[in-house]
Amino acid sequence: MSAPAKTPPPPYHAVIFTSLQSGDTTGYSEMADRMTELAPKQPGFLGVESARGTDGLGITVSYWKDLGSIAAWKQNAEHLVAQKLGKERWYKEFSLRVCKVEKASEFRFTMD
Amino acid sequence: MSAPAKTPPPPYHAVIFTSLQSGDTTGYSEMADRMTELAPKQPGFLGVESARGTDGLGITVSYWKDLGSIAAWKQNAEHLVAQKLGKERWYKEFSLRVCKVEKASEFRFTMD
Repeated sequence: MSAPAKTPPPPYHAVIFTSLQSGDTTGYSEMADRMTELAPKQPGFLGVESARGTDGLGITVSYWKDLGSIAAWKQNAEHLVAQKLGKERWYKEFSLRVCKVEKASEFRFTMD
Repeated sequence: MSAPAKTPPPPYHAVIFTSLQSGDTTGYSEMADRMTELAPKQPGFLGVESARGTDGLGITVSYWKDLGSIAAWKQNAEHLVAQKLGKERWYKEFSLRVCKVEKASEFRFTMD
C-alpha cells in the first residue's frame, strides 16, 4: 500500500495485526498478495494499510464497517489457510487487536 | 521497535498514525528518536509499534491507558514542535486515528 487508507467518518472498526517474521518466507508473498486481493471483496471492507521495516516487524491495519464484517473475513476459507500457515511457518510472533475507531483526522501537504 | 508491544488486557486505547514521507527528511530521524524516548515517560503510555516500508508508507501505533493520556501526549511541548515540523517538512500525507481496543490476542511460535 502506498498511501494512508481513505475511510469514511468514524465510527468503524480496525484490526491491527503486528507480526514478526520467522526465517521461513516460503510462499509468503504469494499468500500476502492473494489476501490483498481477497479482503477488498469482503462485505464491510473499508481499507487496508501495511508496512514492514527492515527489522522484520510488520504492521497491517485493516478497516471494517463493523464487527460482523471482521468475523466473516476471519472465517473466509482461503484466509483460514493463510492463518494456519502463518502460525506454522511464517510468524515467530504476532499480536492481533480489534478496535473501534472513534476519531480520525487527515493531513495532506499543500504548497501555499 | 523489534517486536509486537506487550500490552495489558483490553480495554485500552490506540493511536494509529499512518504517514507518507515527503522528500525532505532533514532532522527526521533525530526527532523520531526523541519521541521514542519521550512517549514512554508519559502517564498512561502502554507501548508502541512502528514500521516503515520501502515505498515510504509508515505506520506507528501507540497504546494508551485512556483518552486523557492521549490528549496529554498531544500537548507535550516537544511533541508539539514535532507535529509542526511534521506538517511543514516531513510528511506529504498522514492519517491519525484514535481507537478503543476491545479485543486482543497474541501468538508466539514454539517448537513441539
